[in-house]
Amino acid sequence: MPWYDTPLTRRLGIRLPIVQAPMAGGGSTPRMAAAVSAAGGLGSVAGAMLQPDALRAAIGEVRALTDAPFAVNLFAPLPPPATARVAEWARLTGVAPPSAPPSPARFEDQLDVVVAERVPVFSFTFGIPAPEILARFKADGTYVMGTATTVEEGRLLAAAGVDAIVAQGAEAGAHRGTFAAPFERAMVGIMALVPALVDALARAVPGVPVIASGGIMDGRGIVAAAALGAVAVAMGTAFLVCEEAGVPEAYKAAIMRAAEDRTTLTRAFSGRPARGIVNAFLEAAEASGAIAPFPQQNALTRPMRNAAAKAGDTERLSLWAGQGLRLARRMKAAELVRVLVKEIEESRRALSR
Amino acid sequence: MPWYDTPLTRRLGIRLPIVQAPMAGGGSTPRMAAAVSAAGGLGSVAGAMLQPDALRAAIGEVRALTDAPFAVNLFAPLPPPATARVAEWARLTGVAPPSAPPSPARFEDQLDVVVAERVPVFSFTFGIPAPEILARFKADGTYVMGTATTVEEGRLLAAAGVDAIVAQGAEAGAHRGTFAAPFERAMVGIMALVPALVDALARAVPGVPVIASGGIMDGRGIVAAAALGAVAVAMGTAFLVCEEAGVPEAYKAAIMRAAEDRTTLTRAFSGRPARGIVNAFLEAAEASGAIAPFPQQNALTRPMRNAAAKAGDTERLSLWAGQGLRLARRMKAAELVRVLVKEIEESRRALSR
Repeated sequence: MPWYDTPLTRRLGIRLPIVQAPMAGGGSTPRMAAAVSAAGGLGSVAGAMLQPDALRAAIGEVRALTDAPFAVNLFAPLPPPATARVAEWARLTGVAPPSAPPSPARFEDQLDVVVAERVPVFSFTFGIPAPEILARFKADGTYVMGTATTVEEGRLLAAAGVDAIVAQGAEAGAHRGTFAAPFERAMVGIMALVPALVDALARAVPGVPVIASGGIMDGRGIVAAAALGAVAVAMGTAFLVCEEAGVPEAYKAAIMRAAEDRTTLTRAFSGRPARGIVNAFLEAAEASGAIAPFPQQNALTRPMRNAAAKAGDTERLSLWAGQGLRLARRMKAAELVRVLVKEIEESRRALSR
Repeated sequence: MPWYDTPLTRRLGIRLPIVQAPMAGGGSTPRMAAAVSAAGGLGSVAGAMLQPDALRAAIGEVRALTDAPFAVNLFAPLPPPATARVAEWARLTGVAPPSAPPSPARFEDQLDVVVAERVPVFSFTFGIPAPEILARFKADGTYVMGTATTVEEGRLLAAAGVDAIVAQGAEAGAHRGTFAAPFERAMVGIMALVPALVDALARAVPGVPVIASGGIMDGRGIVAAAALGAVAVAMGTAFLVCEEAGVPEAYKAAIMRAAEDRTTLTRAFSGRPARGIVNAFLEAAEASGAIAPFPQQNALTRPMRNAAAKAGDTERLSLWAGQGLRLARRMKAAELVRVLVKEIEESRRALSR
């Protein structure tokens, strides 16, 4: 399988150019990351919403399950949020607002854990961490991957010295990584984004590979991404319905039922644009305009989402999912990786006929 | 080149699975359609905005230039438009509104021409023509292609008896073909839309092939579309900057300068959502809300657009373009087809290594 022998797989010592995308909404679990890495791909720990102790424990769990390389993902720090509209939100949801919104874990504290653990791969989204942070990872031999939703964002990341760029297409589920363009204008499909980014990087900062992400659900999508010039793919929704995913059964069932025109970009759950399946809270929040900034809205809706998760109430849960959701399949993560490899070979054979 | 031997190329007797997408905004010309068809692809006459005589003449011009098959595209009829907001529009644009907006050509009259001319391929968008119309084309041996932006629209088209379905991804430039979903929810990237539609058709109406459209600009995109299960591609923006395209030089230059995050979905120019490059009129019209329904807004903005075209004023022209515009190349249409074939082979070789 020499096509799998890409700059990325070689550098990381992995067999398959398949990254399990980090899903900070509960989808990613240490079991899932370990299963994907052990199967030859690159599993990801979604660290962004974890307190430092929980992040350290998650990394430890992956290491207890496999010796294979894995990634840890964080959100690059954003400016502090405003505190408006809490009252409207409380009225809308019927949930008493916390007297002070729970702080998300401090990026610096999360980062200390990732550095101390000397993880094989550090990935991030929402921006670019400070130069000294990236330099520290490089000095430690950690492979660094940033997220771009436009060609310009990719250029900025490459200039900052990242080792690889995840091109997040408009198809992708959950939060947009957009940081240098208006969110609505940075909804660029993989078909257009990947080859344009590959060409721009070849001119500007040769040698920085592109990982395609968004709408990729099976071997056809992986081979298509490779044809566009990507050296690997990152897949979220495909893994989100796997047995190891840490989201409620009702959420997985909602993905299996939904159609591609039932997802939309919304700020309703977190205050920051993300793609999810339309449900009652999403529609009510959008209609009301009672949406606080990120991460405040995320903290504010957490009690509702936690209660909905326990009750299996998919109308009040953030149902992050990508546009490829019709192609989702329920199986174990390792089995999915095996199926993908088989499909990649079928797809390549069909093209070479 | 056996991969090119698809159900579509075989049935139509063409060498290459490359359709030049119809561009009713002036991009398509008989010279362009003839050049693409003569080069082995399938050229398209954009008939939607033509009066019957002009449509007949355009078909005659293509036939005078080549014996190869070609397509004629029309807009499926829509409910009659409302007449509101003309005054606001006039105030915004500074152009006196026509005393009565010029009627677009009647679909029935355009259709009579297409039927009488017994064209090889009839394609349409915006809906599904009546069953008796599709039956007439089938009886005449005309190949019929409809446009879908969701899986459900594809199923409806297949059930209506079309021979092939153009899957219009969210990346595509110009008007959305959406007819059975909210426009904003039917912005589905090719990566997600094509394989889901291929699978749904295989279950529902086997044998109806899918043509991928949106963001495809070079051989990489064509091979990617093939990997996803498409039997052919339709390319608009790539041909729009070609020498034969009938749009102002300033428009072509605007495409060559623009970035993927400078296009947006807008009703500003025609009253119906279409993807184009952001300019001064687009932003002013969206901010004002003074947008009439389609096709009235299209008729209302025509004097402004015509004047802007003559003046090379790209701030008042509808600059339809897809998200792949960074990859646009200025050449003759036949040369582009030759380059695409070379790139397809390079891309296939890279994947089979």
